[in-house]
Amino acid sequence: MSTSTGAGQERKAAGRPRNAQADESILDAVLALLSDGQSVAAISIEAVAAKAGVGKATIYRRWPNKEALLIDAVRAMKGPLPEPSGRSVREDLIALVRAHRTPRAQRYSKVTACLLPELLKDTELGRMYEAFVEPRREMTRQVLRRGVETGELRADLDVEMTQLMLSAPGMMQSMLRLNLGVPEEKFAETVVDAVLRGAAS
Amino acid sequence: MSTSTGAGQERKAAGRPRNAQADESILDAVLALLSDGQSVAAISIEAVAAKAGVGKATIYRRWPNKEALLIDAVRAMKGPLPEPSGRSVREDLIALVRAHRTPRAQRYSKVTACLLPELLKDTELGRMYEAFVEPRREMTRQVLRRGVETGELRADLDVEMTQLMLSAPGMMQSMLRLNLGVPEEKFAETVVDAVLRGAAS
Repeated sequence: MSTSTGAGQERKAAGRPRNAQADESILDAVLALLSDGQSVAAISIEAVAAKAGVGKATIYRRWPNKEALLIDAVRAMKGPLPEPSGRSVREDLIALVRAHRTPRAQRYSKVTACLLPELLKDTELGRMYEAFVEPRREMTRQVLRRGVETGELRADLDVEMTQLMLSAPGMMQSMLRLNLGVPEEKFAETVVDAVLRGAAS
Repeated sequence: MSTSTGAGQERKAAGRPRNAQADESILDAVLALLSDGQSVAAISIEAVAAKAGVGKATIYRRWPNKEALLIDAVRAMKGPLPEPSGRSVREDLIALVRAHRTPRAQRYSKVTACLLPELLKDTELGRMYEAFVEPRREMTRQVLRRGVETGELRADLDVEMTQLMLSAPGMMQSMLRLNLGVPEEKFAETVVDAVLRGAAS
């Protein structure tokens, strides 16, 4: 298994010279179908091929089945997580929340929303999604644990709940397209400061 | 329009004596289909009738179309909101969060998850859902505003963000069935105290 983050490198490593443009169109077609509210069941290799403007054979050369294609599409959507700078817990948390607010990540939220019925079933896709999301949660936990150690965060912090409190508002806001009256460029900071400072006077 | 909260009374007001048992079976069938991950498009009056063990005519006597039926099913799912006791903001917030943790509300979260692709489109159902959820958000806002006035909450509180921070973790936890290591009977209290006290030391 290559640990490369670049899809292009992965393809070279597998010894399969490819049309990167076509691959991108294919993954993009899957995401477009999902963000349009197509259920996983309704998406067919035929539909993806038609949307991407390629033949079915082009898809089958790269992906053995629809599930593998869906998993790659979801994976392709999210960019790499930012490296926590380690300057302050507050700054690192803002960077982590902000990484979920890019247009790419916003599209991801919308696709996740459309995948939810599928993720709720105990499917291979659900397990892969979990395997994909979990390291991202873990990165937030690590920053929170560091904050407890340095004394920036309270000693009795519930790390798991705090991790969810940092991620859930943004996901719900994206999924339900809520207008919170917070300008997008202030969103991450507003969430993190609300979590850090608390609501009590 | 009757403002009665009892479906039975609404029916009486409309002058249509009915089989309450059949109505409940019908709404329950819709919810069962939705929690099984059926998309809105896939649900037909035929399927609901079959699942409920009634004839299609019984459904059409009460609901003019599928959308009206779906809206009633979603509405039927959630019980009435608790009246804030007004003793303390903390107690009221715990009661409001707890109202979303009953088995009935948990089922609601699962159904919402399966409705999400539909809610993301600009459908009549989406607008009705919003009209249904909004008063519940408003109740939380009112408790928060009261807390700012009484001095229990900070004067510069972002009411909208705080409202989302109180509701989003529970919704995400239910939708994705996350195990946070918090016993269910402590969930509401844990969320509220995390929001109130903040993570900073």
